[in-house]
Amino acid sequence: MKESIAIDMDGVMANVEKHFVDWYNERHQENVSIQDIQGKSEANAFPEPGIIKKYASTEDFFRTAPVMTGAVDAVKKLNEHFEVYVVSAAMEFPQSLVEKREWLKEHFPFINWRQIVFCGSKNVIKADYMIDDHPKNLDPFKGKKILFEAFHNLEVNKFQRVKNWKDVLDYFEL
Amino acid sequence: MKESIAIDMDGVMANVEKHFVDWYNERHQENVSIQDIQGKSEANAFPEPGIIKKYASTEDFFRTAPVMTGAVDAVKKLNEHFEVYVVSAAMEFPQSLVEKREWLKEHFPFINWRQIVFCGSKNVIKADYMIDDHPKNLDPFKGKKILFEAFHNLEVNKFQRVKNWKDVLDYFEL
Repeated sequence: MKESIAIDMDGVMANVEKHFVDWYNERHQENVSIQDIQGKSEANAFPEPGIIKKYASTEDFFRTAPVMTGAVDAVKKLNEHFEVYVVSAAMEFPQSLVEKREWLKEHFPFINWRQIVFCGSKNVIKADYMIDDHPKNLDPFKGKKILFEAFHNLEVNKFQRVKNWKDVLDYFEL
Repeated sequence: MKESIAIDMDGVMANVEKHFVDWYNERHQENVSIQDIQGKSEANAFPEPGIIKKYASTEDFFRTAPVMTGAVDAVKKLNEHFEVYVVSAAMEFPQSLVEKREWLKEHFPFINWRQIVFCGSKNVIKADYMIDDHPKNLDPFKGKKILFEAFHNLEVNKFQRVKNWKDVLDYFEL
């Protein structure tokens, strides 16, 4: 039987880091760079607090998010060797449910509906591996935990860290 | 720490059995009764095959489903004593995602977004107990399995069976 991997969407398959910066600059005529938000918390990443929650609640944000570099090829490869589940904490933002479903269909058409999970808490998720950018999701997980690097988790050092999808494939020796 | 229960929606919290019969009779000027479909498979429950998949893919079906008798009070009580997750295989029918979210908000307002999971396969779900009307969901589950009676599972005898929500509360001694 194949081992299973639970893969997070935002910050892992979808490059929401870039998307937040782009949306902010466009709406505030600013020039915040990706570099500027490194090491900051999600709540205080931008000069105006709460931007991330605001955009995450806004129609079209998730539907138009760019794909993380290398994600499509890497997930495709993982999907050949593992039982892959895409597990997204989408429930906090109900407008994102359909958008995320459509986004996956467009960018990851080889992921079928049986492999998708939209949840609130990830406490209820069981798999052999979890790839996620949020320590709060990895903490209660019982399998092997892989932290995908993001601006808000640079100082976390209790998990196996991957910086990008190349690192993920190296980790799984693919 | 509280024990956790994964509770299915369709056929457990939502009385889709009655809803299928009502929709069918209304649309076909027929008088199929709940009794008529007992012991039949989902695929062949109605004179016209495929009705269940068809209605499950139809807008408004899940949004207007009646609540199962006793479900609100029982889930409320379970929610006081257990870590409750509502786990629905909604992903096959994308139009149902928002409808099920709204249905839960209307009928089970005490269930917060952290407690809701919409998935495809339930292989990825971990909890201490699962209450479900489908053997295919209970089979791969590692915790205690509780089969909620439905027309299509009458001959299944490999699980602890509950006939209704009163039985569920008796099982948990609540």
